[in-house]
Amino acid sequence: MPTRAEIEALDRNDPLAGFRSEFTLPPGVIYLNGNSLGPMPTKAAVRAAEAATQEWGVGLIRSWNTAGWFAAPYKLGDRLAQLLGADAGEMVVTDATGLNQFKAVAAACALRPDRRVIVMEGSNFPTNNYMVQGLAAFLGQGHDIRFVEKDGILDAITDDVAVVALTHVHYKSAHVLDMAAITAKAHAVGALTVWDLCHSAGAIPVDLHAAQADFAVGCTYKYLNGGPGSPAFIFAAKRHHAAMQQPLSGWWGHAAPFAFDRDYRPAEGIGRMLTGTQAIISMQAAEPGIDLAVRADKHLAWAKARTMGDLFIAQVEEKLGVDMFRLDSPRDGHQRGGHVALAHPHGYPIMKALIEAGVIGDFRAPDTLRFGFSPLYLRYTDVADAVDILTDIMARDVWRDERFQAKDAVT
Amino acid sequence: MPTRAEIEALDRNDPLAGFRSEFTLPPGVIYLNGNSLGPMPTKAAVRAAEAATQEWGVGLIRSWNTAGWFAAPYKLGDRLAQLLGADAGEMVVTDATGLNQFKAVAAACALRPDRRVIVMEGSNFPTNNYMVQGLAAFLGQGHDIRFVEKDGILDAITDDVAVVALTHVHYKSAHVLDMAAITAKAHAVGALTVWDLCHSAGAIPVDLHAAQADFAVGCTYKYLNGGPGSPAFIFAAKRHHAAMQQPLSGWWGHAAPFAFDRDYRPAEGIGRMLTGTQAIISMQAAEPGIDLAVRADKHLAWAKARTMGDLFIAQVEEKLGVDMFRLDSPRDGHQRGGHVALAHPHGYPIMKALIEAGVIGDFRAPDTLRFGFSPLYLRYTDVADAVDILTDIMARDVWRDERFQAKDAVT
Repeated sequence: MPTRAEIEALDRNDPLAGFRSEFTLPPGVIYLNGNSLGPMPTKAAVRAAEAATQEWGVGLIRSWNTAGWFAAPYKLGDRLAQLLGADAGEMVVTDATGLNQFKAVAAACALRPDRRVIVMEGSNFPTNNYMVQGLAAFLGQGHDIRFVEKDGILDAITDDVAVVALTHVHYKSAHVLDMAAITAKAHAVGALTVWDLCHSAGAIPVDLHAAQADFAVGCTYKYLNGGPGSPAFIFAAKRHHAAMQQPLSGWWGHAAPFAFDRDYRPAEGIGRMLTGTQAIISMQAAEPGIDLAVRADKHLAWAKARTMGDLFIAQVEEKLGVDMFRLDSPRDGHQRGGHVALAHPHGYPIMKALIEAGVIGDFRAPDTLRFGFSPLYLRYTDVADAVDILTDIMARDVWRDERFQAKDAVT
Repeated sequence: MPTRAEIEALDRNDPLAGFRSEFTLPPGVIYLNGNSLGPMPTKAAVRAAEAATQEWGVGLIRSWNTAGWFAAPYKLGDRLAQLLGADAGEMVVTDATGLNQFKAVAAACALRPDRRVIVMEGSNFPTNNYMVQGLAAFLGQGHDIRFVEKDGILDAITDDVAVVALTHVHYKSAHVLDMAAITAKAHAVGALTVWDLCHSAGAIPVDLHAAQADFAVGCTYKYLNGGPGSPAFIFAAKRHHAAMQQPLSGWWGHAAPFAFDRDYRPAEGIGRMLTGTQAIISMQAAEPGIDLAVRADKHLAWAKARTMGDLFIAQVEEKLGVDMFRLDSPRDGHQRGGHVALAHPHGYPIMKALIEAGVIGDFRAPDTLRFGFSPLYLRYTDVADAVDILTDIMARDVWRDERFQAKDAVT
């Protein structure tokens, strides 16, 4: 178990330590919820203000040309491609994750017209399932979602499967699926894959090309620190570009948007995954966070996130014992995403008490506390301090206070 | 023809004149492109900065509860309902117009499962057509889009029609369709209507209830001044709420988003038109513009927009003659939306020269110049001044200069 001095030494020797100064973090807060909404890069506020007052306020309609509004999805997509093992031209930043999921699964289904089974994880973040349920019902061709859990995935990929649509890192437990092995099995039976990287991008190793991934989607507001509801990304491997189609065929995805043709004709390449006008202020504000994630050495960032998670587990078990919380995440850091899930029957008031004490994590019903270890702004000492605060809350039964029992609308 | 003194008197007596001070307008610009992107309400910059630095930067994840992020689509929708003749609970502000069009047409088609014809205007803004083409292809049930032009609409609504999906004000000519008469014809044959209000909301009279409209969509960045790509709106009449379904069934549209159920169960009411996490900074920045449009007396705003358009046409014909430009919009202000379209074979360089001279309108291929008369920040003297500048450009052949010939990427 590392001593305090050793933990402080980890910070002193952290080659990523300089990135912390790029963020605006409220005083008195240890922010362990970057797995839900990353904090604000200082430049994001500058970009949001600039997008409003300069690009909109002064540039007005001219900014479509002069401020690069139309090109932004491609520009940010090309940058993210560097982080995720894709090529320029294979990714755009656009719309929201669920919409991109709809597009990607629809495109994959259309590429496998003779098959009707979609494999998904039943315990996945529900919006993925909901979106594909909506798609399947609407296709009206008898598509069937085969829900399995992680240990049953490989066996569920049989030769009637059209699409395997999975989230790389589980939103609750943080278990990591083996993207390469699952994709290989899918390809072996003639199926395609759609990977949701919401909890992966910026936190753990992702190499879309190495895994031979077909399609991928994800948000930019967790470990990419793009801002609340910042636009999501969508990836399609170049080998699918010529044949892929998706139903949300808006004018930004048209081969010649300003020709104002009556009939849809898809753009060449990844552009056909675009729909329509993007939320520009949110898009521009997302750029600094994406830039930071791309600028940081990704191998160092992944290693730091893993080491912080390992340290958190070790500190919790040392200071609180192994019985007080149930570890719901893989102990092996290589099997785990960027967050750690602890379960406790009184998880809700415990998290409320932690938040009041300045340690922000989150809660997922019925009993999960999630703690995210985002590598660019957290210090190893933050991890240790957070565990000390948790230890104090448990030792003094702080969480039993009545004010921590009332449920918020959004939990 | 009004004299300059009479035009100045119109401004002095304009009961909406005070609204101009709510906007930040760049000096030296007469902005006649609010039909494409409205200018910035000064408070929008404040809200964008606040959403970034305070809500995101300081509130972090807590702002889902404390800054009303989750409730914003409903709150803004309820406000807009006041402007558009709907009830609270019939409208949400969310996603982009094309996506909302997709949802609304899909929902309407599902409510008319035995019919396969969708009536649309062939010359409509293309993304509407593209989205419905994408929808029809993916439905794979033989839905057929019956493209007609305005004079053929009523006759095209026969008893095989499922949905009539039209734009209330034409993006190019600004002709207004008779929402009540077309909806009545649709209902008489058992069809449903989807109205796109992009060029109507905030510019001309809209009363969704009086017209018995079924569904409607529209953007908030034109006459509602919500900012570049600000979230759009979607309306569904209460009578359809219980039965309507749409395929983009994300978690924000779920009956209990935080129960994390595996299966989709739609929210009661308009909430089922929501998909997922919204671009919050853009959403918050849109609020001041929507507020201004709702706060202004709508009858006065509609009358002013119409009077400015009338004045523009009269001034152009007085100063440039009736032959130099072809009037492509209805002369009758009650048949016209908020903009006026003039055609000229050299429309592109003429518009570029106008923009350089500080009069910002826009150009639509092959020969249309559009001038938008948004009622909350323009003065009648701006209209007269713009025509004087156009007159000068034509008299001196300024537009023939080589620098005005090169095409921009986005026109």
